Amino acid sequence: MKILLKNATLLKEAGFGTEPVQLAITEDKITYIGKDLLVEDEYDRVIDCKENLIMPAFYNAHCHAAMTLFRGYGEDLPLRRWLDEKILPAEEKLSFRSAYYGTKLAIAEMIKNGIVSFTDMYMFEDAAAEAVLETGVKANISRCIVSFEDNMRREEDARFAEAVRLAEQYHGAGEDRLRVDMALHAEYTNKDATCRYVAEFAKEHGLRMQLHTSETRAEQEECLARRGGLTPIGYFASLGVLDVPTSAAHCVYVTDEDLAIMKEKGVYAVHNPTSNLKLGSGVMPLRKVMDAGVTVALGTDGAASNNSLDILKELQLASVLHKGVNCDPTVITADMMPALATRNGALSQGREDCGKIELGAKADLIMIDMNAVNNVPSYDSTVSLCYSANTSNVILTMCDGRILYENGAYTSIDIECLRFESRQVIRRYFN
Amino acid sequence: MKILLKNATLLKEAGFGTEPVQLAITEDKITYIGKDLLVEDEYDRVIDCKENLIMPAFYNAHCHAAMTLFRGYGEDLPLRRWLDEKILPAEEKLSFRSAYYGTKLAIAEMIKNGIVSFTDMYMFEDAAAEAVLETGVKANISRCIVSFEDNMRREEDARFAEAVRLAEQYHGAGEDRLRVDMALHAEYTNKDATCRYVAEFAKEHGLRMQLHTSETRAEQEECLARRGGLTPIGYFASLGVLDVPTSAAHCVYVTDEDLAIMKEKGVYAVHNPTSNLKLGSGVMPLRKVMDAGVTVALGTDGAASNNSLDILKELQLASVLHKGVNCDPTVITADMMPALATRNGALSQGREDCGKIELGAKADLIMIDMNAVNNVPSYDSTVSLCYSANTSNVILTMCDGRILYENGAYTSIDIECLRFESRQVIRRYFN
Repeated sequence: MKILLKNATLLKEAGFGTEPVQLAITEDKITYIGKDLLVEDEYDRVIDCKENLIMPAFYNAHCHAAMTLFRGYGEDLPLRRWLDEKILPAEEKLSFRSAYYGTKLAIAEMIKNGIVSFTDMYMFEDAAAEAVLETGVKANISRCIVSFEDNMRREEDARFAEAVRLAEQYHGAGEDRLRVDMALHAEYTNKDATCRYVAEFAKEHGLRMQLHTSETRAEQEECLARRGGLTPIGYFASLGVLDVPTSAAHCVYVTDEDLAIMKEKGVYAVHNPTSNLKLGSGVMPLRKVMDAGVTVALGTDGAASNNSLDILKELQLASVLHKGVNCDPTVITADMMPALATRNGALSQGREDCGKIELGAKADLIMIDMNAVNNVPSYDSTVSLCYSANTSNVILTMCDGRILYENGAYTSIDIECLRFESRQVIRRYFN
Repeated sequence: MKILLKNATLLKEAGFGTEPVQLAITEDKITYIGKDLLVEDEYDRVIDCKENLIMPAFYNAHCHAAMTLFRGYGEDLPLRRWLDEKILPAEEKLSFRSAYYGTKLAIAEMIKNGIVSFTDMYMFEDAAAEAVLETGVKANISRCIVSFEDNMRREEDARFAEAVRLAEQYHGAGEDRLRVDMALHAEYTNKDATCRYVAEFAKEHGLRMQLHTSETRAEQEECLARRGGLTPIGYFASLGVLDVPTSAAHCVYVTDEDLAIMKEKGVYAVHNPTSNLKLGSGVMPLRKVMDAGVTVALGTDGAASNNSLDILKELQLASVLHKGVNCDPTVITADMMPALATRNGALSQGREDCGKIELGAKADLIMIDMNAVNNVPSYDSTVSLCYSANTSNVILTMCDGRILYENGAYTSIDIECLRFESRQVIRRYFN
């Protein structure tokens, strides 16, 4: 399949100026970017971008996709009651079937919002794998591992066994769209021995690691008390976990020492501003993290604590939030932000050739409607993206050269059927 | 014109439960709400809501509409440089024509976002008046008054004369859709004498008052020093300004004493969370303001400091922001929020019969698409509104019984023409 996008305006970060360019896609890659007028007959599809913005698609670097089933199910509660009274009992009822529809619903929402790839940590990840392979998106999925026994043996750990089986079965599937990571839920839900063998397995098999770290003040303080003065990052580092390429979600209470470790080990920090606000966790010190040389990507977290899966919304929230809480409008500027929602997310998944508009890169692109009334006027497309665009402006989503969404229509999802099946599942399990 | 909305689900705050109802509109009013199946033949238009959410339309309680022309024009600058280098020179070039297109562009965006009425404080308000009357929305417009001379005489004040002329010419026009308020820009841009005669005129003529108060810490501290220990609210109160029905925008640094005065005088506080974050001003203590018995409405501020005119976005930001900065997910709950975006905005404009779904109320309604993938599942429509809906879910906007927007199409605005003319104006003045 050869697709020509003509009259495309690119974000200035892409280095092609503000004049419209032609962009050719052959199979899954970008094969031309420039001013030359190409021969339209040579393409299977020619799309006139009409000077709309073409930019790298969004990457969602932290999610629990199947939790879309619990969107709005337990609201405005303190974390502990939210978990104990609402989420844990609901999760008891989860099955392959419900997780499949929950994940597919999440994917439909993400595609509509211009997201082509997500990092997922949950249960029933076989269901997530099926949903990813079917719908044409990408994901780094993981079986979330927790351990409450002090000296669990590797051979006896059923969750770890599931994670291993998942990696064997799915890692690299769908022409590498699907990858399997290892995941340790958090410091407060794991023990030393388990952390060690999970990290060893990841290292042996070249897999990446997903973690939750320093999400709440209580987590941070309890860790310091429990682990002899170690922070969650310090704890994981001490067990060799961070010797595996890692993305650490939240990092709200990271210390300067944590940041030094993260920089040294190349750990990605995943910023989930809406979830951190909504659960009352706090605000990650974004500028401090960036200044420490740590690469930051954006995540939505699960729909149970957000309740949207919209990286553009997170990008825009982050663009203003840090100015406000620091009382300084220059602390975060628009030009710093697009990478967090695109390229950095791809890198946090180990996808070196994704999340950028470059010759030879994977064609993960979205088109943003710059004629939408909320984007008029636009003096600078990066500014429009960070402060005035919204999800209704995403008019095309392309993943690995395949158009998944265009002008409100899905190409890989029967949305009516998905809505019907999802509601059936929800009615049966959670009402 | 008689319109029947059938199978409408209402927010539970409206008191009609969660079962779908029928809703009849005759001319500009709601004339029936209930379970009876009405005779469809008696209506000029029957709309099947398909169990989508029908709720009061949004009210934007603080705006500078024409500044839409400067959306994204000066970004990521400290307030003083933003004003001096960007906004003030651009405002020098404003004219009736450019203000007209700027305001109309703002109105088009607001209608699309489900906003039917806005509170406006700016210059060239004749242009705003024309745009409001033409497009079918409502507004409380005002000529923003500043005074730098200590003992300006009422007869010599050209800005005040313009405000008076505006009130005489437009107050109550368009069957009361258009109202004219008085406006004192802020404490730091006014003198005692001017505040007194503007307030007197408002009192004599039954007009309302718009103010900016306590937006930044510097404003608050300089006021305390300049006014012998009075805060901006205290200053305005001392001059009789707050004896006029008043809405005070921002209130980021309000004190307990300010709140006691505001409650006593019935002053509305207008919360503009995005603008306050983006300009690095800070975060209004929303729960404290509400607990003090002060009624809070939501505003977008102008597009030069937001950069969207989307009250649903403000509602959602406020719903999570205060949980996060207070590290308490219960400090603001979903059920508290819809009134701020609807009813309280109407009240802040003195529109007693608006912003509510009630027999005899003005038919200011919007329809929210609950089948949109981002709203599935929905266990509670108020929760969906506060945490998962987005502006693309607004599929119908009705103001005073007239449909202004439906499924992406405007009925009172030629949007192609507006876009073209706006860009012409922008090119001529600001590029």
